[in-house]
Amino acid sequence: MSGAILLADHGSRRAEANEQVEALAQILRDRIADTIVEIAHLELLPPDMTTAIDRCVQQGATGIIVLPYFLGPGRHTRKDIPEAIEAGRQRHPGVEIRMAEPLGIHEKVIDLLLERIEQASRD
Amino acid sequence: MSGAILLADHGSRRAEANEQVEALAQILRDRIADTIVEIAHLELLPPDMTTAIDRCVQQGATGIIVLPYFLGPGRHTRKDIPEAIEAGRQRHPGVEIRMAEPLGIHEKVIDLLLERIEQASRD
Repeated sequence: MSGAILLADHGSRRAEANEQVEALAQILRDRIADTIVEIAHLELLPPDMTTAIDRCVQQGATGIIVLPYFLGPGRHTRKDIPEAIEAGRQRHPGVEIRMAEPLGIHEKVIDLLLERIEQASRD
Repeated sequence: MSGAILLADHGSRRAEANEQVEALAQILRDRIADTIVEIAHLELLPPDMTTAIDRCVQQGATGIIVLPYFLGPGRHTRKDIPEAIEAGRQRHPGVEIRMAEPLGIHEKVIDLLLERIEQASRD
């Protein structure tokens, strides 16, 4: 099976935010061998989920994992992304599309929040 | 100095999302001794930043660290939160209010994203 990761974020009008997501996609490409990595923005700017799913398939992906770049559950991760996945399955019946969980409250996130607090109190 | 952490998130209409932020605030209370921890939602539901800053001060905080529960830079972390902090400083001249950085692309976040991909491919 040829695999793809679809990194799905909120989208922002700020170049800084979008550059960060592009940088993250490149990190995933470097870390996961032989995997297509595409980006989708849920709001504000292209590519949208439909375009991004189709791009993965056009590159030969037969399995796609949609990776929400969101901290918690919300409308995008509980409604918009699942609906776009369902539509993608209908367009591409031979392609397996799964969604990963958003980051959530995880020890690694808590550690990093504590680190950010520590930095702010030092400055 | 009596310190407070103001955990500022996007806000959601979904109970699941807001419960997660409440749970995270409780974790911060448990981890950081003698610190006031308040929540603010940038959108959709109270308390807003103004209310949350004032709550910290009413409880005796003379120093507040605003901790954005956001992955990356965007309008909320680059404009809305800094403006609310500036307004808070004007209302409470004796109180030092600082902002921590959003989580950003950090090795801990990358690790957790890879873990979420791994979980989704196993399911």
